[in-house]
Amino acid sequence: MAKTNPGRFFEDYSIGQVIEHAVPRTVSGGERALYHALYPARHALYSSDEFARACGLPASPLDDLAAFHVVFGKTVPDVSLNAVANLGYAEGRWLKPVYAGDTLRSSSEVIGLKQNSNGKTGVVYVRTTGTNQNGETVMEYCRWVMVRKKDLDAPAPETVMPELKSVLAPEDLVIPEGLDFSAYDFTLAGEPHRWGDYEPGETIDHVDGVTIEEAEHMMATRLWQNTAKVHFDATFRPDGQRLIYGGHVISMARALSFNGLANAQMIVGLNGGAHANPCFSGDTVKAWTEVLDKADTPAPGVGAIRLRLVATKGGESFTLRGEDGKYLPEVLLDLDYWALMPQ
Amino acid sequence: MAKTNPGRFFEDYSIGQVIEHAVPRTVSGGERALYHALYPARHALYSSDEFARACGLPASPLDDLAAFHVVFGKTVPDVSLNAVANLGYAEGRWLKPVYAGDTLRSSSEVIGLKQNSNGKTGVVYVRTTGTNQNGETVMEYCRWVMVRKKDLDAPAPETVMPELKSVLAPEDLVIPEGLDFSAYDFTLAGEPHRWGDYEPGETIDHVDGVTIEEAEHMMATRLWQNTAKVHFDATFRPDGQRLIYGGHVISMARALSFNGLANAQMIVGLNGGAHANPCFSGDTVKAWTEVLDKADTPAPGVGAIRLRLVATKGGESFTLRGEDGKYLPEVLLDLDYWALMPQ
Amino acid sequence: MAKTNPGRFFEDYSIGQVIEHAVPRTVSGGERALYHALYPARHALYSSDEFARACGLPASPLDDLAAFHVVFGKTVPDVSLNAVANLGYAEGRWLKPVYAGDTLRSSSEVIGLKQNSNGKTGVVYVRTTGTNQNGETVMEYCRWVMVRKKDLDAPAPETVMPELKSVLAPEDLVIPEGLDFSAYDFTLAGEPHRWGDYEPGETIDHVDGVTIEEAEHMMATRLWQNTAKVHFDATFRPDGQRLIYGGHVISMARALSFNGLANAQMIVGLNGGAHANPCFSGDTVKAWTEVLDKADTPAPGVGAIRLRLVATKGGESFTLRGEDGKYLPEVLLDLDYWALMPQ
Repeated sequence: MAKTNPGRFFEDYSIGQVIEHAVPRTVSGGERALYHALYPARHALYSSDEFARACGLPASPLDDLAAFHVVFGKTVPDVSLNAVANLGYAEGRWLKPVYAGDTLRSSSEVIGLKQNSNGKTGVVYVRTTGTNQNGETVMEYCRWVMVRKKDLDAPAPETVMPELKSVLAPEDLVIPEGLDFSAYDFTLAGEPHRWGDYEPGETIDHVDGVTIEEAEHMMATRLWQNTAKVHFDATFRPDGQRLIYGGHVISMARALSFNGLANAQMIVGLNGGAHANPCFSGDTVKAWTEVLDKADTPAPGVGAIRLRLVATKGGESFTLRGEDGKYLPEVLLDLDYWALMPQ
Repeated sequence: MAKTNPGRFFEDYSIGQVIEHAVPRTVSGGERALYHALYPARHALYSSDEFARACGLPASPLDDLAAFHVVFGKTVPDVSLNAVANLGYAEGRWLKPVYAGDTLRSSSEVIGLKQNSNGKTGVVYVRTTGTNQNGETVMEYCRWVMVRKKDLDAPAPETVMPELKSVLAPEDLVIPEGLDFSAYDFTLAGEPHRWGDYEPGETIDHVDGVTIEEAEHMMATRLWQNTAKVHFDATFRPDGQRLIYGGHVISMARALSFNGLANAQMIVGLNGGAHANPCFSGDTVKAWTEVLDKADTPAPGVGAIRLRLVATKGGESFTLRGEDGKYLPEVLLDLDYWALMPQ
Repeated sequence: MAKTNPGRFFEDYSIGQVIEHAVPRTVSGGERALYHALYPARHALYSSDEFARACGLPASPLDDLAAFHVVFGKTVPDVSLNAVANLGYAEGRWLKPVYAGDTLRSSSEVIGLKQNSNGKTGVVYVRTTGTNQNGETVMEYCRWVMVRKKDLDAPAPETVMPELKSVLAPEDLVIPEGLDFSAYDFTLAGEPHRWGDYEPGETIDHVDGVTIEEAEHMMATRLWQNTAKVHFDATFRPDGQRLIYGGHVISMARALSFNGLANAQMIVGLNGGAHANPCFSGDTVKAWTEVLDKADTPAPGVGAIRLRLVATKGGESFTLRGEDGKYLPEVLLDLDYWALMPQ
């Protein structure tokens, strides 16, 4: 029994430690088709090779969130197997599109550690990097999780809190090489609204909803080789419910946001995100977006737009938090990201 | 909120209007694998590149119904978002097989309009065309739907009723270039029955049944980027049920018809079709076929056969309608199509 | 109605009879992606083209069990449509990896027949061979099933019991051409344990569990074009339950065994197997393995390991059978196979 992976505990991490995550993965048209089957994903750049070529890319890439899930999934056995909570994300950047045939691997560096005052848990900060078969970084992000100690007598490490940007600056964003929206086809993309039509402070109700099924979230989560027990084993939690992988809610909400944000094509930055409440099978996920900021980019016809994407289970208003400052119980996700849009 | 798509209402259509539908789609082996996972599809021409080549095609095409779904799915946001009912199909023709790597788009022309006497709804007739990346038409079909008016004071348009053929003539059918059944392998195809073995009036009970699950019909419907709320959101209908996309029943019934019609390989014509009753998760779909007609074709060894495909939920007999002339409640689908068969 | 396949009955088989099974199948990246979505499969050789190349193969092959399912699925309409029980497997060998683009077909030879003393059923032994588009055998296995007689007056055939090896000898195993584990990357593979770290008699609890859903096992079973009614039609069995295809449990257990056997990369031999009890939706499948034997191979750095893989629904101990010698009710699968492991 000693051969199975018990996961790392808080005392197993040290600053500067680099963990090479297992199981590289080659993606193909199969992953793309499954992404379309699992989410109501319609962004044209990720659906059509022809559309992507008209935007200066060699072919339609794998959805950015699919790339994120592949990179993230590999970290689970090393980072979050004994996690009590997934606390946050920061400084997520997509640096290079992923194409069919690419093979992805991940590694994480421990960049922060802080034992909690209870002496039983601590917070681990990692910076995770996804790399393709040519050694090119395709994406990177920071994440921090609360992890149990196994040996409560293990000494507390020196506290190191990384300095993480609360928001990526527009100049931090990497525009995919060759991207050019100057001949962008708004009709084929599905909506006429361009970068100039969105204003900070504006909110968009994405109207549609999807009721979640066990089979779907398990297939999605397995596709990214995220094998955390809590998503698959109905006997694991005392209430007999399988907790839905937070990334499933991210992808569902992002896909729903097509309706009103069809031209927010590529995600290039993840400023932060909170899984505000757990999601279970039977919940009906809906989404709304608040426009937070806009910026120009050097690429032809390409603007950047900063969006807050909120997923709810049946919430009726654009309210995130109650009077106590806590997320309302119907809020599932609060995600802050940068996307690219035609100008 | 103004940025989300409210869909078109009856008064938004005019005769001759051409609507270019959004979100082109490149298909790959992923779509084929998913089609096999979602339906008990076994027709050899769509399963094996080698079999397809032995029949004169360059490779195994995407299932004709999958091609139909891709083309159809794109029309939903423009044609049927505010539809009360999907009334009929006619003059459906498959003009060119779709292969992995092809990118499909759709457009529709409004060919008929008739306001209903209640002044609240009207019937819209469209001819939809699916086109590949070379500008070649891969399929076309007419469909008419009943659509709500938004502005009840909008004037009724002049009534235009298109002349649509109730049945395609054999000479209307387009045989894929190069198709040759003269060396057809009946053993590999799964059944010995050839074109000459079927007689008009004959009925075939396809014996097998499939009990429908929510996760499956939602994955199928999303795969075709059909995002009509009613298929996904359990809170949308007062009864809390998700209505199953009619095309899911068509594909299920067609796949079940392999058992008895394994050699009815390619669908080339859709004469008409009715979704007789709604289908919900938990229904067990079965199918039977009546042979309606047969015709010769110019292609070597290739005959055409006209079939009525009926899907039921548990019906025991070959009866479609009750004494009142209405479809029996267990009838889900009544589809009239032309297929190609070895002689 | 005579055109549907009634399946073969016991009296329809004769010694030496060769049955060419229908519906050849071309596989692609789509099948690989679906295999990853349906099972928690993480073995690196089947996930990454780069990893497979570093092991001397041209690309990442289709999972061996997926290849088995494709070959097996084709035999169902000819071998087990009227089967009362699937009694056993023997002499299963994987002879050549299957790659994207390959087209598989199957044939079976009847190698044994024994009518049961009740005169109503008999046991049929077949040796099934899977072949690719170049006529190369990719795998073979023997299976025996109990099949109903239709005509109880049909004379009993002469009893022929094939001599089948209870265990394949190491020299019977075929190592894929070029396979070389001398530069094997244990970090990317996910575990440090190599061939030398496992000892016969050792047991490994694979810890993780998956609760089974109807939609998933049906998609998996259809993907292999196994269309036996009992897996799909909830009205078929008196208890309204759909029986889960035994192969689904095999793949689930094998995928779960990654945790503790990440380096048991390729399955090359199937010595035997029993589906000890039926599996239904809602069951939570867990797995444990007993190391049975080890052997050297001529390939560089490659050792063979013989494993007993047991799937249970919630069993807590490593016990297979009760005092009566029968499988305990929680045991689903008892599989004996040879895998290849880095030394």
